[in-house]
Amino acid sequence: MNREVVKAFYGSFFHAPVYGEFEFLEFALIEVNDKGYIERVVKRNDPEQPSLLREYRDQNILVELGFDRYGLPGFVDIHVHAPQWPQASLALDEPLYLWLEQRTFPLESKFKDLEFSRKVYEHLVEQLIARGSTTTVYLGSAHLESSIQLAQICSDKGQRALVGKTVMDDPNANPDYYRDASAAQAVVDTETLIHEVEDIGRSSWAGVWPVITPRFVPSCTDEVLKGLGDLAAETGAYIQTHCNEGQWEHDVVYERFGKTDPYVLYDFGLVNERSIMAHCPYLTEEEGELFAKVGAVIAHCPMANSYFSSAVAPIARFRRQGIRVGIGTDISGGYSPSMYENIRQAVLVSRLLETGVDAMLPEDRRGGLGNNTRVSLVDAFWMATAGGGEALGLPVGTFEPGRAFDLQVIDTKLPDSNLTGFGVFNSPADRLARILYLSTPENIRQIYCQGKLVRDKDAT
Amino acid sequence: MNREVVKAFYGSFFHAPVYGEFEFLEFALIEVNDKGYIERVVKRNDPEQPSLLREYRDQNILVELGFDRYGLPGFVDIHVHAPQWPQASLALDEPLYLWLEQRTFPLESKFKDLEFSRKVYEHLVEQLIARGSTTTVYLGSAHLESSIQLAQICSDKGQRALVGKTVMDDPNANPDYYRDASAAQAVVDTETLIHEVEDIGRSSWAGVWPVITPRFVPSCTDEVLKGLGDLAAETGAYIQTHCNEGQWEHDVVYERFGKTDPYVLYDFGLVNERSIMAHCPYLTEEEGELFAKVGAVIAHCPMANSYFSSAVAPIARFRRQGIRVGIGTDISGGYSPSMYENIRQAVLVSRLLETGVDAMLPEDRRGGLGNNTRVSLVDAFWMATAGGGEALGLPVGTFEPGRAFDLQVIDTKLPDSNLTGFGVFNSPADRLARILYLSTPENIRQIYCQGKLVRDKDAT
Repeated sequence: MNREVVKAFYGSFFHAPVYGEFEFLEFALIEVNDKGYIERVVKRNDPEQPSLLREYRDQNILVELGFDRYGLPGFVDIHVHAPQWPQASLALDEPLYLWLEQRTFPLESKFKDLEFSRKVYEHLVEQLIARGSTTTVYLGSAHLESSIQLAQICSDKGQRALVGKTVMDDPNANPDYYRDASAAQAVVDTETLIHEVEDIGRSSWAGVWPVITPRFVPSCTDEVLKGLGDLAAETGAYIQTHCNEGQWEHDVVYERFGKTDPYVLYDFGLVNERSIMAHCPYLTEEEGELFAKVGAVIAHCPMANSYFSSAVAPIARFRRQGIRVGIGTDISGGYSPSMYENIRQAVLVSRLLETGVDAMLPEDRRGGLGNNTRVSLVDAFWMATAGGGEALGLPVGTFEPGRAFDLQVIDTKLPDSNLTGFGVFNSPADRLARILYLSTPENIRQIYCQGKLVRDKDAT
Repeated sequence: MNREVVKAFYGSFFHAPVYGEFEFLEFALIEVNDKGYIERVVKRNDPEQPSLLREYRDQNILVELGFDRYGLPGFVDIHVHAPQWPQASLALDEPLYLWLEQRTFPLESKFKDLEFSRKVYEHLVEQLIARGSTTTVYLGSAHLESSIQLAQICSDKGQRALVGKTVMDDPNANPDYYRDASAAQAVVDTETLIHEVEDIGRSSWAGVWPVITPRFVPSCTDEVLKGLGDLAAETGAYIQTHCNEGQWEHDVVYERFGKTDPYVLYDFGLVNERSIMAHCPYLTEEEGELFAKVGAVIAHCPMANSYFSSAVAPIARFRRQGIRVGIGTDISGGYSPSMYENIRQAVLVSRLLETGVDAMLPEDRRGGLGNNTRVSLVDAFWMATAGGGEALGLPVGTFEPGRAFDLQVIDTKLPDSNLTGFGVFNSPADRLARILYLSTPENIRQIYCQGKLVRDKDAT
């Protein structure tokens, strides 16, 4: 008997420790220690398994997933605008500037009201957990208090989180009613956020971390970018921003600095191995080499890019370049809070990047990149789990010893979301495909984060 | 009092009688007659409404949707391969020929077993109804009996359906274990199907109709195409096939006939105002003019096209050309049985058709068609409802007098699918966008087809 094991999980699990591959752990026993980390994975053919099962059952610490239920790692969503949750799905047919001016800025500005803020953030965190996301990287509003509140809510609800206060100080680029008071104040507020969130993190079970969060280069003064870069160097904190997202941003940054935003951000000290760069469809090979070299991360947001980037991010190329890539729902540039829907989109848009879109053009002039663009379903699953863990440098996203035990239990036999193959195609690959393509939130019954049950939809 | 009214529905409804527009019927009363058709829509400001409400309540024939619940027309899904349901979501990373040879043909061939067939078809029809689809156009397998069985199952479960037996007779193009015995036999079987399904239709509440269904030109001999064309002329039955779906099909047909498949099908008598042509991303302006002139319908399958067509169908152009267009889930070329997910995809891929995909190319050479490609969310909603009705020439898809009353009731206040805007953006347009983008099957609580309750998820 292992004295460290406080809970054990018996059932069949899917995970993807290696990019491009998945592993099916059929009737495996996963031992979890008192800190919520995986001690050991005891496979079906291990001669010890039967006696361990008996032992843990006797100790009443065994959780059995049951037949027709499968365990997946909790998802890692690395790009979410928390204050945009009330407008998820709205006005996506609008041009970006109207979407920002008429919708996003007025909405985000409401988060100085901490009561409103609490209502929205509690709801958002609950909805994300209910969809299997056990780790989330959030951009808060430009307000310090509500961003700290968000970190506390994640900690209270048991979701692992990275939380930033969005910095947007340039009076020429941001509305009067919603921006940082000054560059200096924005840096001070970010410093306060770092201390406060680290403080929350110390008493948090699954962990919360602060993130230095310039909105994107066009909304920030040189002074604030420099101040945040210095802060990053001093604190070693995570950094997140939007990078190479669209043509307008690309052109505006180039006009201002004579270089593109990856280099601008790098020169301000904001591109390093703790940096999460959202979107990046416009990232060139050369810029990608910089990211690979310093270890910067790309948050792939396949939905949002289709609406606001006028292009598809070349994820397969990024991976070949050795860049770390995770997936972000990008609420609310992407409409869906579900990583499942984003996994599906990551695959689908990679196919259009391969082929191009307009069949009236000959195949070789259709604007597609050809054969090497595909993101397979398993690649996308990896990005949403192990890849997200790798991106954040956190031990999450797989069922391996030493990793935090984050689990979503998928019931494949529900009346209205019955993921059956009628016994025809029933290989593990097929079962995983059905789960990833056809699951609805209803199929996700229990969610554990760091070994703790954070949601049980079967509880009455 | 209107003696014809046997049921009345009170609540708030969304529908889209006109392409590009939606109407919000807030607190409206919809009267339904004994045949399941809408007699009258009594709006909120109609002075008669209060007394009618009292009267119908007294008669115990009033259904009240309730607060936070909204009525949408049942969806019209105009392209579903019924026997492919067990492989929905599988092997979408495979090339088309492997997907057909290793998966689709072996699977479809199993439907000569009527017990297997019944199990799959009952499950499929239930799952589609549970997702709000009250009218569905099905392609059966190549077997006569199971296709008739499918029509009977739809009738029994109360779903309005069009059902075809797939014809694929060319020994050079189809596997020995799965094809029509001969061209003559395929025509005879189709004739039998027409009679049998019309027979079922006569005793069906919401209606079922037969469809002449050549799989697509490459799997059919000239003889069978001519035979089916003659049968279409004799019977006036619906016709469905795949048309202009991909480059391979396009080239193979051109080599065989010296013309493209719209013209081949037209010359065989298979393109008329009863024809449903699936996919069509390769349809030229000139071919589109033919479709507009004869009144042929396009089934837009936005998911499947992304996987198997190497292009996006230019729906906005088709609509400008005056072509009728509906949406098909295309199970299992598309993975999702949900028209909601297909509505979302119709919007999303139209944006990539606008812009192209590869940001390394200059904007004007990125392969996008520019500004006139967009399918708005409301356009897609129209296609999935009123457009589908128009496509089939059936009085369905809106809440207007004379239409069949097909309803899905959406509950926007569920624990895990709570479609709230927190009171911030709450216009009818925003409420509709949240329903269409964020609904899960769980939000759909009741489904009525032709005035009859066919599913109630609130029933214990």
